[in-house]
Amino acid sequence: MANYQKQDFPTDQVRRFLEPGPVVLVSSAWRGERNIMTMGWHMVMEFEPSLIGCYIWAENHSFDLIRKSRCCVINVPEVKLAGKVVGIGNTSGRECDKFQKFGLTASPGSRVEAPLVDECFANFECRLVEFISRYSLFVLEVVKAHVASTPQYPKTIHYRGDGVFMLSGSNTSRYRRRFKAGNL
Amino acid sequence: MANYQKQDFPTDQVRRFLEPGPVVLVSSAWRGERNIMTMGWHMVMEFEPSLIGCYIWAENHSFDLIRKSRCCVINVPEVKLAGKVVGIGNTSGRECDKFQKFGLTASPGSRVEAPLVDECFANFECRLVEFISRYSLFVLEVVKAHVASTPQYPKTIHYRGDGVFMLSGSNTSRYRRRFKAGNL
Repeated sequence: MANYQKQDFPTDQVRRFLEPGPVVLVSSAWRGERNIMTMGWHMVMEFEPSLIGCYIWAENHSFDLIRKSRCCVINVPEVKLAGKVVGIGNTSGRECDKFQKFGLTASPGSRVEAPLVDECFANFECRLVEFISRYSLFVLEVVKAHVASTPQYPKTIHYRGDGVFMLSGSNTSRYRRRFKAGNL
Repeated sequence: MANYQKQDFPTDQVRRFLEPGPVVLVSSAWRGERNIMTMGWHMVMEFEPSLIGCYIWAENHSFDLIRKSRCCVINVPEVKLAGKVVGIGNTSGRECDKFQKFGLTASPGSRVEAPLVDECFANFECRLVEFISRYSLFVLEVVKAHVASTPQYPKTIHYRGDGVFMLSGSNTSRYRRRFKAGNL
């Protein structure tokens, strides 16, 4: 699979890709073990520092890897990876190496000890700021962002539950002139 | 504007509408004052109880109304309301009644003391479970859900920042057979 040409991207603008709510792949590693999980429960929480909240169930194999390594990478897949995204979400990292099983390429992070999923459009290297146990909520800081230079917007998949995905549609800036400058 | 025919909807399935990441309108009231705000920073946190996390900036007029009344309604607008959604997001409730200014209908909540925005496709009545001040994070429980019976999926708007919206595209269940039953 051809990879993207990626560039550094400002961490305070990762909302462009995460705020629309795509399913993402979260990659992590700890003491020679690595894993990928599929995640749909996440939100932007701050621009600067660039904070992302995400829920990870304690039963997920990635839960321990991220808590122990205190880092992970949030990878944004395009729709062409949808089959693999579903496969990853329905396989446990306890049973196999998902990079190998799904033919995905692990690149080393530049700021964190977690691998990037090369075949994804965007990769956000994250440090764990805080784990709020009563909600199983991980507060992550994006410390480095890599984003493909084209296309401008990835064609993402958004989960509705019950096996149904919404695919991202067109983009419009027709309402832009109605924003106050500070609200953009 | 014609309103939707709405039905009760199971609170543990509100992910169908929120997990894809649409911009929502949050309505609230406290001691005779009411307000609507536009919000894009939210996430599903649990099925049962039905928990939603959302970030609300302390400078927003709604911040105090929701903290004091300990409730609000999350309303999902379709793209036909996009102009009003942008207007609401760029107007302060300190200066006007936004229901009146934007010609929207406030219906009383059945479980909470906050108004529903009738013109929205779905209305989720929420109680405030906890306010986590260091992240300005509101953890809300959906205690009652009203959803239009048609169309099956609303045409929603998803914010990318910088005045750009992504519009929801098509829905597909072509990957459904690859899910394990418990993972749907």
